[in-house]
Amino acid sequence: MSRSVTWSQTLTFFEDDWHDGNVPIMGVRTHATWLCTSVFDGARAFEGVTPDLDLHCARVNESAKVMSLKPLVSTETWMALAREGLKRFDRDAELYIRPMYWPEDAASGAVRPDPETTRWCLTLYVAPLPKPTGTAMTLSPFRRPTRESAPVDAKAGCLYPNNARAMIEARSRGFDNCLMCDIGWPIRPRRTALFSPASRARASSRSCARQAPR
Amino acid sequence: MSRSVTWSQTLTFFEDDWHDGNVPIMGVRTHATWLCTSVFDGARAFEGVTPDLDLHCARVNESAKVMSLKPLVSTETWMALAREGLKRFDRDAELYIRPMYWPEDAASGAVRPDPETTRWCLTLYVAPLPKPTGTAMTLSPFRRPTRESAPVDAKAGCLYPNNARAMIEARSRGFDNCLMCDIGWPIRPRRTALFSPASRARASSRSCARQAPR
Repeated sequence: MSRSVTWSQTLTFFEDDWHDGNVPIMGVRTHATWLCTSVFDGARAFEGVTPDLDLHCARVNESAKVMSLKPLVSTETWMALAREGLKRFDRDAELYIRPMYWPEDAASGAVRPDPETTRWCLTLYVAPLPKPTGTAMTLSPFRRPTRESAPVDAKAGCLYPNNARAMIEARSRGFDNCLMCDIGWPIRPRRTALFSPASRARASSRSCARQAPR
Repeated sequence: MSRSVTWSQTLTFFEDDWHDGNVPIMGVRTHATWLCTSVFDGARAFEGVTPDLDLHCARVNESAKVMSLKPLVSTETWMALAREGLKRFDRDAELYIRPMYWPEDAASGAVRPDPETTRWCLTLYVAPLPKPTGTAMTLSPFRRPTRESAPVDAKAGCLYPNNARAMIEARSRGFDNCLMCDIGWPIRPRRTALFSPASRARASSRSCARQAPR
């Protein structure tokens, strides 16, 4: 590791207690470590408020079910833990609030997670909100997976490497972020149509140029 | 966690030393923990041999590049470490040999891994080979992702949750394993054609019944 990593203030509830810093939560044999079966959600705290925290907590429980894990923590317990954790930060701190589930072990064989080994944690850490300075968007050559080829009905970590490479590719062309088309939608929207909510409808019109699938 | 997990004999080289058991390698802030950016490979040891170990070690380095990580370990070093580790097991032990890379932190923002924070380990553990008793295969309603919607050119952990749900679905119908069609290949192979190398060619013939996309 050629860059040493320093973490912003981090507080995590894991295995019945609060921990500071980058507390170890996964071992080399842990299922999620190598087979990427973790799910999470990402709420925010800023200016003393936590918008939709209840919805984020409810959603991570739905994501757990999609990943065949056991949603062991009620929304009320997630919320109570989050409130407890928030007290340890400055009132106006800008935080990321991330509840997580993952399996510790597989069912027979290696690939299927064993829901009876579901583990969880709640982590809160300082992560300043991006400044509203504008964002340069482009259209990615990568695509969003279909429902039948990835668990897109969960907020699953396994969906993010595809997003990561799309962002890397966009950055390589001088953009900050990108849009990805669905598979089977080989249409190139006009560049000027990329930024409005109506872009999708316009881009799918027959007047647009067709783009060969990559 | 309602089932306690006991691990088979496990030996891991991580951060310049050998460790026994499920040694912690990822913390709550580690990029791969929640954004699933780890890659691995899986070689085997049995009857005192390690077939294609060099190819597995070379491949994990290629997978690292696909995931925008730095392949810090030469094939020769992977091989030397594996040989060193193997000495700690019985000569005829049936082992899984897993080299891994993952990013510790993100580049700016959260989603893109920072290759300058690449970490790695080599783990070896007892994992008996399946008995050659036969396998009941079925066709999965799930699909293999396209190259543009997942990093299928890497042995990336993020590809496995889709496989896991396909296997869970197959098991729910009494099968041991399953085949997945590619996206855009809405053809149902004849059941009798599922097990031979020629099945793909036959299944794509126009004589097969069409299957509506799920």
